Amino acid sequence: MKLVLLSGGSGKRLWPLSNDCRSKQFIRILKEVNGSELESMVQRVWKQLDRVDLAHHSYVATGKSQTELIQNQLENRASIIVEPERRDTYPAILLAASYLYSIEGVSLQESIAVLPVDPYVDDAFFLKVKELDGTLNDYQADLALIGVKPTYPSEKYGYIVPTSDNILDDSIKVSHFHEKPTEEQANQLIQQNAYWNCGVFAFKLDYLITHMRERNFPLHYDELVKQYNNLPKISFDYEVVEKSKNIIMLPYEGYWKDLGTWNTLTEEMDETIIGKGVLSDDSLNTHIVNELDIPVTVLGVSNAIIAVSPDGILISDKASSPKVKDLMKNYEQRPMFEERRWGWYKVLDYARNDEGKEVITRRICISPNSNLSYQVHKERIEIWTVICGKGELILDGILQEIQTGDVIRILAGVKHSVRAITNLEIIENQIADNLNQEDIQRISMNWEEILDYSSNRVG
Amino acid sequence: MKLVLLSGGSGKRLWPLSNDCRSKQFIRILKEVNGSELESMVQRVWKQLDRVDLAHHSYVATGKSQTELIQNQLENRASIIVEPERRDTYPAILLAASYLYSIEGVSLQESIAVLPVDPYVDDAFFLKVKELDGTLNDYQADLALIGVKPTYPSEKYGYIVPTSDNILDDSIKVSHFHEKPTEEQANQLIQQNAYWNCGVFAFKLDYLITHMRERNFPLHYDELVKQYNNLPKISFDYEVVEKSKNIIMLPYEGYWKDLGTWNTLTEEMDETIIGKGVLSDDSLNTHIVNELDIPVTVLGVSNAIIAVSPDGILISDKASSPKVKDLMKNYEQRPMFEERRWGWYKVLDYARNDEGKEVITRRICISPNSNLSYQVHKERIEIWTVICGKGELILDGILQEIQTGDVIRILAGVKHSVRAITNLEIIENQIADNLNQEDIQRISMNWEEILDYSSNRVG
Repeated sequence: MKLVLLSGGSGKRLWPLSNDCRSKQFIRILKEVNGSELESMVQRVWKQLDRVDLAHHSYVATGKSQTELIQNQLENRASIIVEPERRDTYPAILLAASYLYSIEGVSLQESIAVLPVDPYVDDAFFLKVKELDGTLNDYQADLALIGVKPTYPSEKYGYIVPTSDNILDDSIKVSHFHEKPTEEQANQLIQQNAYWNCGVFAFKLDYLITHMRERNFPLHYDELVKQYNNLPKISFDYEVVEKSKNIIMLPYEGYWKDLGTWNTLTEEMDETIIGKGVLSDDSLNTHIVNELDIPVTVLGVSNAIIAVSPDGILISDKASSPKVKDLMKNYEQRPMFEERRWGWYKVLDYARNDEGKEVITRRICISPNSNLSYQVHKERIEIWTVICGKGELILDGILQEIQTGDVIRILAGVKHSVRAITNLEIIENQIADNLNQEDIQRISMNWEEILDYSSNRVG
Repeated sequence: MKLVLLSGGSGKRLWPLSNDCRSKQFIRILKEVNGSELESMVQRVWKQLDRVDLAHHSYVATGKSQTELIQNQLENRASIIVEPERRDTYPAILLAASYLYSIEGVSLQESIAVLPVDPYVDDAFFLKVKELDGTLNDYQADLALIGVKPTYPSEKYGYIVPTSDNILDDSIKVSHFHEKPTEEQANQLIQQNAYWNCGVFAFKLDYLITHMRERNFPLHYDELVKQYNNLPKISFDYEVVEKSKNIIMLPYEGYWKDLGTWNTLTEEMDETIIGKGVLSDDSLNTHIVNELDIPVTVLGVSNAIIAVSPDGILISDKASSPKVKDLMKNYEQRPMFEERRWGWYKVLDYARNDEGKEVITRRICISPNSNLSYQVHKERIEIWTVICGKGELILDGILQEIQTGDVIRILAGVKHSVRAITNLEIIENQIADNLNQEDIQRISMNWEEILDYSSNRVG
C-alpha cells in the first residue's frame, strides 16, 4: 500500500500564524507526544505514520511553494510529488497516480490511499487506513473510504450515507454523499447511520490508471506535468468518488478533529500559553500563542485567543475567530517569517528611508551543511554580519571561511553564496531603490556545483 | 512669575508604553491641537505654556535619567534643574528655589508656581496659574493653590477644605486638607465646598528661602546639590503646605483630568486606533495603541485596551487596566525603545547565540547635528551598517565621512563617535560574551571637544 498525503492550500484562517507561505499544517503549536518540543500538524502526522510503519510508503503531493517547508519540517525524509501549479484534488491525484505508475514502477494491483496531510487523530486512525487495503480486496470495491462517527449534527462537513440494505460486517456499503446539510438534515443523516467524510479514500492503482486511459490522459508523469494546466480544475470527490459505483466505507469511532480555526486549535493546546506571556487569574479560557520575543500580558479578558507572530497580532473572541479569514482576505503583506529548505529567516525591520531607498533587515539562520543558492542581484547591495557560527562563503568566485563578527559587503552584480558549517546566523541588511523578488538571479542551488564556480576550490 | 514643572516618577501604570526609562508624560499618544501629529503630555503642556506666554519663564525639575528625553521632546527649549538623585517633592522644590535664587538671580519678591509637568487641562488652567501671582500679593498669602471643582466623590484624590467663614470673592481661604477620603467622606467634603488638590501651588521666593534659612540649609544651588542626599525624603505637601497658616485657593471649574491609567487615557484619544490596526465592528469601546510595525487585528473584543510597544503587548479589559502596575511591578526588562538627547534607538533582536555570546541588533536614529558620545568598549565589538543619511565618523582618531551602505566595524578598545549631518540611521550589531552598560566608557559628549581627538581635523 502507498499513501499520498495532500498538502493543500494556503490561507488566513489561522492568521497571523498562517499566511500565503505558511499553511495551517505547518504551524508549530502542538506538544510532542512523549516530548517537550512543539511540533506542527505535518510533523505530528509523519511521526504517527512512522509508528504504524507507513512513513516509508508515503508521498506528499503539493505545490512548489511548500516543498522547502515540508523538507525542512520532515528533515528531508518525505518523497514529494510536485504539482507544477495549484489546481484541485482531481488533477493532483491523477498526477500522483502517474508518478507512482511511471516513475516509481508501482504495481497496478497496489492499493493507494489518499489523505489530507493534517488529520488530528489517534494512531488508530492510521491503522484503519491500513485496513483499506484488505477492504478493497475483500469487496472488489472501486473505492474504500474512512467515515468518522459524527459527534454532533455538523453543518460544515460532508456525510457518507450507507445503503439501507447494509449486510456487511465491519464495513458499510455506500449509497451516496451529502455535502453540508442543514442541522435538521444532519440529524436525519445521523439517524440513517451516516458518517462524516474525512477526505480519506483508497483505490487500486489500476482503477485510476484505467480511468486516465479511458480519458486519453498521458500515463507518464513527465508528459502529464506538461499538460497539467489543461486538466480540469475540479475536486476528486466530484469527478471520481461521487461517480463510482462500488464504494465501501470503514467506520472510525476514535478521535478525529478538524483543527482549522483558532477555536478548535486552542482546544488541543496542552498549555494556555505558548511563548512569552502572562494571563491574569480572571482571564478564563483565554489562550496566548506568541512567536515574538516581546512579552504578552492579558488582564481580565476571557474566552479569547491572542496569536502573535512577526506577521501580525490577533486578539479575538474565540467564537468570532473563524471570521479572521474574511477580515484578512484582502490583506496583502510580505511574509515576515519563512521556513526554507536551508533554515529560516525573520524580517526584523523594514523601512523606506529618507533618501527613498528600501531597507530590509533580516535575521537569517542556516542549518549545518545547508547552503543558500549561488545568486546575484542587479539592484540591491547586501551587508551581512555573522552573529553566530562558522561557514564557507563564495564571493565573486573566491571561497573563504567566515565566522562570528565577520562582515560581508555584497555589491550589486557580485555573485555570492554561503554554506553553514555549524548553525550559521547572519543579520542581513538589504538596500536598494526597490527591493523585489525579481532582483534575485539564481545560478545554482547545489553546493558541489557552486564550488566549481570558485577559483580557489581546495581538492 | 516663574514656573517650576515637576517631572516625576517612572512607573508601569501605562505599561508597555511606560517603563523605567519612559514615564507616562512622555508617551506620544495625544493628537496635536490644530495639528495631525501625535504628541506627549509634556509636549502638549509646553505648547499651552507657550500660548499663555509662560514657557520662557518655566523650568523643569527632574532627575538625570529624564533630561535627555525632555530635551529631545521639547527641542532643547526647556531650562532643566537636575536633581542629583530622585528623592521627593520637598527636596526637589528646595533645590529649584535655590537654583532660581543663587544661579538665576530671581528676586525674592518673585512668585514661584510649582506644578506637575503633565496636567491634562484647557489653556484656561494656565491663565488661572498666572492669577496666583496676584492672589499672593492681594492676600499676603504664604501659599496660593489651585483647586479643581470635583465632578464626583473620588476616593483617590486629596481635597482642599475651605474655612466656614469664607468671605473672599473669587478666592477661598483654606482651612485644611483631606487626603483620599471614603466615598461618604468625599460626599460630605463636596457639600462643604471642598475642591480637589491638583498639585499646583505658588509662593513668593522669599517664603521658601526664609524657610531654608531657618533650617540652616545652604542657599546656593551648588552647595545644596552636594548635601542633597541628606535632605528629608518627604513630600512638599506634608512638609510645607499642610504646615502653612495663610493659604488661599483659586477655584478652577474648567477641564482637568488625571491621565494616569489606560482607562482614563483612552478617553482622551481622538481616534480608536493609533498605529497599524483593524477593529471589527462588534469590538465596541476598544482602543488600539500600536507602536510596532506589526499590524493588530481585534475581533469581537469590547471594552479593551490593546497597547503594543517594543517592550510588550498588553491586552486588558479597561476596568482592569489599573492593575497592570501591580502585575508588571517585579518585571525587569531591558528597555527596547529609548528616546535620547541625540535621537532614539529600538532593539530589533536580542539573543544569546550557540557560542554563548550575547548579540543585540538595534536600529539607531541620530538627529541632524547631534552626535553620540566619544566612547570605547572593553569587551564588545560593534558593527554598524549605515542605512540612511550622511554623517561624520571618528574611529580611533581618524575623521571620515560616512553614508548609506557604508559599514563600520568597531573592535574592542577602539574609540569612536559619530555625528549626523542629515538624519542618520544605523543598524548596529553588538557582540560580546556579556553585554552590559558598564562596558561603555564615555570620553566626551561635546563634538567640538571630540574633534580635538581626531588627527585629521580640518580647519
